[in-house]
Amino acid sequence: MLSVMRMQIPKTHPRYESLMKREKIIEALDKGILAKAGLIAHGRGETFDYLIGEKTAPIALEAIKAAAALLILAENPVISVNGNTVALAIDEVVELAKELNGKIEVNLFYRTKERELAIKRAFEEKFKDDIETGKIKILGIDDANKQIPNLDSLRGKVSEEGIFTADVVLVPLEDGDRAEALVNMGKKVIAIDLNPLSRTARKSTITIVDELTRAMPLLIKYVKEFKNKDREELLKIVEDFDNKKNLKDMIDYIAERLKNLSLDEL
Amino acid sequence: MLSVMRMQIPKTHPRYESLMKREKIIEALDKGILAKAGLIAHGRGETFDYLIGEKTAPIALEAIKAAAALLILAENPVISVNGNTVALAIDEVVELAKELNGKIEVNLFYRTKERELAIKRAFEEKFKDDIETGKIKILGIDDANKQIPNLDSLRGKVSEEGIFTADVVLVPLEDGDRAEALVNMGKKVIAIDLNPLSRTARKSTITIVDELTRAMPLLIKYVKEFKNKDREELLKIVEDFDNKKNLKDMIDYIAERLKNLSLDEL
Repeated sequence: MLSVMRMQIPKTHPRYESLMKREKIIEALDKGILAKAGLIAHGRGETFDYLIGEKTAPIALEAIKAAAALLILAENPVISVNGNTVALAIDEVVELAKELNGKIEVNLFYRTKERELAIKRAFEEKFKDDIETGKIKILGIDDANKQIPNLDSLRGKVSEEGIFTADVVLVPLEDGDRAEALVNMGKKVIAIDLNPLSRTARKSTITIVDELTRAMPLLIKYVKEFKNKDREELLKIVEDFDNKKNLKDMIDYIAERLKNLSLDEL
Repeated sequence: MLSVMRMQIPKTHPRYESLMKREKIIEALDKGILAKAGLIAHGRGETFDYLIGEKTAPIALEAIKAAAALLILAENPVISVNGNTVALAIDEVVELAKELNGKIEVNLFYRTKERELAIKRAFEEKFKDDIETGKIKILGIDDANKQIPNLDSLRGKVSEEGIFTADVVLVPLEDGDRAEALVNMGKKVIAIDLNPLSRTARKSTITIVDELTRAMPLLIKYVKEFKNKDREELLKIVEDFDNKKNLKDMIDYIAERLKNLSLDEL
């Protein structure tokens, strides 16, 4: 089916990017990286992305800048990844980790040994050198011996070196329970979530309402840029950011877009 | 995974219905009824349903009534089904078909012999008697010898007795190309589509913007009720219905809901 789709979709197709992401997601299911529910989750995201216009909103860019500042200020930041994140943005995750302390933790909603290993394999196949030289560390598989309080045991398993002792956790595509549990542990949570109404979006410290593969390169760009700023400047960027206001602005942005679309398209 | 989900989700869960539908969709994938892309499509629908509040909007009910009238007026109505429709609403499809002329046609976006047979088997397992007594006919598998103009050959394959000669086609969860091609053949198309902005929604004669398993029982109810109405009354219901206005009202309804949600939930 994949090859059939590839043949049929020219690069000039207005929804080319979206359709290619769909293929990556299906490939990840076939490789065992993704649970089936991850395909449905991807579809939910597609609709939100369609509603925000499949481009980064200026409002989301503010969240990205605040997230970049917070990541640089962090003493022990960790990037938490699940199957969907690995399927769509493994390269960007590794690039961002290398700009920070290199820590990437695998953290699955439906945790099975097979999926853990499939994800570990995906990193090892592409980034063998970075792992061997210690530039990145893939945590949360063999060393998930600690437990996030108030989460069921499988979903709450984390690495001591990683999420358990992290002060800032970047959680692309996280579920609401876990985002909330991490915040309750006193951590600062940066979420990338296309649904501005989700519990993840509302519970996180900074929520980037944008599509993962668009948000990550921007986040990397601002992490690189902001390294030149002094601590006071970075603190100010973080403090000036109001997550509730940002979410409300995103929701209004979507509502306005819908109203305008309705005139154009019908 | 399915059984784990079943154990974890109590019937009192606010999103119980939605989570059970998700299970049905995953089961259908496992049975070969659904293509993987069907899971992503289901996720897209979930977001729209979430935005309309997971209940039938009064605006959608107007479309359902117009659709019921049109189906009764039809001389040769056909219900077109794909994998998602069979996964979610096989019982309702059969019940509606029996209120009409019994014609159900299998019409797949990703047509393979295996999926055709899996869907045929799903009908035969549950509705053997209805098929043997001729109360329903499952068309489009062995008899898909005609072609819808301007569609690629696999997606355009239809049965002469079914869609090819139908005057009214009910297409739950149809793709935009095919809805448009059917309208271009002079047919009246009734779509059930949660996305009021989709091409299917815009191209169809009557678009019901509602979730399939909520819309179908209502459609059956009004078909039964409206059989008591005379032809003039039915024609008036159909003629008074303005699909573009209905879609615009649905879009505004979603936009308003979003704005109000933003105040409640944040």
